[in-house]
Amino acid sequence: MRIVVQKYGGTSVANPELIKNVARRVVRTREEGNQVVVVVSAMGHTTDQLLELAQAITSHPPEREVDMLLATGEQVSIALMAMAINELGYPVVSFTGAQAGITTDRNHTKALIKKVDPKRVRQALEEGKIVVVAGFQGATDDDEIATLGRGGSDTTAVALAAALQADICEIYTDVDGVFTGDPRVVPTAQKLDFISYDEMLELASLGAVVLQPRSVEFAKQFSVPLHVRSSFNDHEGTRVGEVSCMEKSRLVSGVAHDLNVAKIGLFDVPDRPGIAKHIFKKLAAENINVDMIIQSWMHNGKNDIVFTVTRDDLPKALPVVEKVVKEIRASGMDYNDRVAKVSIVGAGMVTNPGVAAAMFEALADEDINIEMISTSEIKVSCVIREDQAVKAVNAIHAKFFEENKGY
Amino acid sequence: MRIVVQKYGGTSVANPELIKNVARRVVRTREEGNQVVVVVSAMGHTTDQLLELAQAITSHPPEREVDMLLATGEQVSIALMAMAINELGYPVVSFTGAQAGITTDRNHTKALIKKVDPKRVRQALEEGKIVVVAGFQGATDDDEIATLGRGGSDTTAVALAAALQADICEIYTDVDGVFTGDPRVVPTAQKLDFISYDEMLELASLGAVVLQPRSVEFAKQFSVPLHVRSSFNDHEGTRVGEVSCMEKSRLVSGVAHDLNVAKIGLFDVPDRPGIAKHIFKKLAAENINVDMIIQSWMHNGKNDIVFTVTRDDLPKALPVVEKVVKEIRASGMDYNDRVAKVSIVGAGMVTNPGVAAAMFEALADEDINIEMISTSEIKVSCVIREDQAVKAVNAIHAKFFEENKGY
Repeated sequence: MRIVVQKYGGTSVANPELIKNVARRVVRTREEGNQVVVVVSAMGHTTDQLLELAQAITSHPPEREVDMLLATGEQVSIALMAMAINELGYPVVSFTGAQAGITTDRNHTKALIKKVDPKRVRQALEEGKIVVVAGFQGATDDDEIATLGRGGSDTTAVALAAALQADICEIYTDVDGVFTGDPRVVPTAQKLDFISYDEMLELASLGAVVLQPRSVEFAKQFSVPLHVRSSFNDHEGTRVGEVSCMEKSRLVSGVAHDLNVAKIGLFDVPDRPGIAKHIFKKLAAENINVDMIIQSWMHNGKNDIVFTVTRDDLPKALPVVEKVVKEIRASGMDYNDRVAKVSIVGAGMVTNPGVAAAMFEALADEDINIEMISTSEIKVSCVIREDQAVKAVNAIHAKFFEENKGY
Repeated sequence: MRIVVQKYGGTSVANPELIKNVARRVVRTREEGNQVVVVVSAMGHTTDQLLELAQAITSHPPEREVDMLLATGEQVSIALMAMAINELGYPVVSFTGAQAGITTDRNHTKALIKKVDPKRVRQALEEGKIVVVAGFQGATDDDEIATLGRGGSDTTAVALAAALQADICEIYTDVDGVFTGDPRVVPTAQKLDFISYDEMLELASLGAVVLQPRSVEFAKQFSVPLHVRSSFNDHEGTRVGEVSCMEKSRLVSGVAHDLNVAKIGLFDVPDRPGIAKHIFKKLAAENINVDMIIQSWMHNGKNDIVFTVTRDDLPKALPVVEKVVKEIRASGMDYNDRVAKVSIVGAGMVTNPGVAAAMFEALADEDINIEMISTSEIKVSCVIREDQAVKAVNAIHAKFFEENKGY
């Protein structure tokens, strides 16, 4: 029998009616002759509401207790989903992350999956049951509850699909698939039928929040075929897999933007070996992910280092940087959290140097100043002013995807 | 160092402000030189809200999934409580029932504690931490989440206190202690300074909802001294322990009433050996607790059997009884859920036969008809019409506790 893993996000299970809808879809997949594993997120805004409760008590909750708190959101969802499926007359069982055999490291609130041992899931499937698993969570070796960070349910689904050698991992969301730009911002955005893991990875990392980056990495690593689609209709969505030769010919697959960005600058940093390591090791020790890093041209043995972090991490990052500035005797620092990142992604870009230039031109035509640039083989990212993000994304999208204006 | 186990009910932790209040009380107990274990219930009406969610999906949720759902309520509370204690500068750790080593049987939604192995609790206490434990829940041998039924947090607290050989188990609630009657119904009710386990057991079973009966059984079995008191003030509450000789001289300790009662009658039941067994075994198989049982005088080899169950169990009980009526060829059945049970409890009652008569007299004086009577060594219970319960309790209370009217 085929094994299908389906993941439903918070908006797809936001209330009992929606949960019943999802249950019907799950049962239909089962009736088509598949073994079905359903991974669900917390209902609607549950996670935010739980965090608000915590904030009413302390602005610095211990992360272990944050995980203890947040893990309840998905546990409510799996119980209700199992009830809804049972009500439709199908045998079903729900599992917490720990029960499903998902072992994580001890990095609370941002834990990484170390191992998946889905022994109970497999056994339940063999007993003919539909299995419902709590996304976003697992347990450490010493039975501590840990969460995988925002969007971690995608990772749960893909990790389970990999461990079960599932035939497909379907990611249900509130949009029809992966688009050439965010449809809420770019009205002319088009749905992609297929996208490669690498492109999806860049898009996922770049604020196109359809899939969590780590889940795409996992999928690529274990060759799990993904299908991103809507839980509100039956349209074919976007399939994510290994790139084919034909696909490589597409220059740019999508335009992404990300408002969860802040930039931090250190000025007049002495140019000594090990300085950069010192700065970014301290940030890593605090679990702060640094995204773009720019080091300016050296003048008099000193230069500026500018980098970006998520805005969420800014309050944690600033004291670290302040300390580092003193330690390395830089002249000072500054930050700006009113910036955004716009990016283009495409597997064909690597062979075509004109793509980046076309993007810069689109921005220049709209009088948008580029504050930072970073490039990889399949993407170009620019940091710009936050209030220009929508204009920028539309201008870039028009450049690459709309006729007449096309690149 | 003394070990103090404190249990706080849902009304004591209903919102973040109240949780912070409790945290201050916990820290104060710690500052007085005690090792402190805190057992908490779900916040306010959380459990009811979760059950409403389930009801919106199905009227017959599988009990395993109900437990999966309900256990989240206490998990939220322990996380928030740990955050509040941490905020006050004290090392703290929260544990789910499973993490605290509470093993239950597989009787979902009404599980019994089989074993408490508080290894992690003890270790955390030794590390100087305050320990917060989720009440009402545990895990079966095969890692299934199970809940102990309504009020199960008391049982968690007492079981932990027994396993840790705690010096005292304090049960915090929204009233000042155990009263001679329910203060909401009997304005003249007086607080008791002391009550024996046996008396408390009868009172707890009889709808004086201060303590869960099983928790009192546990306390008696393991000689855990209890102190029932208010979380909203510092008044001395009611201590529960072994009866002393002096205490035995008190005839009646309290008057209780219970509205969660329904009576079911089976008519013209053939008087054959094994018939009663047949009826009540079937009910037990469905996990329905039968309270009072009355078998009437036999006429022509047949008699009526009347018994009471909680109103909650009535929908489950009726189909069972209907089936039994056919199987045993009784003439029919009826039920009434508009009844109440009023009771008097007192360790001194056993040696004084006039006590029951005085209770019946109090009811007769108010023209209240007694529908069923049941007695034990330390209690007398009467089933009456629900709408007469308040009048009945006050009349009985006046008889035994108020001067001039006194027995």
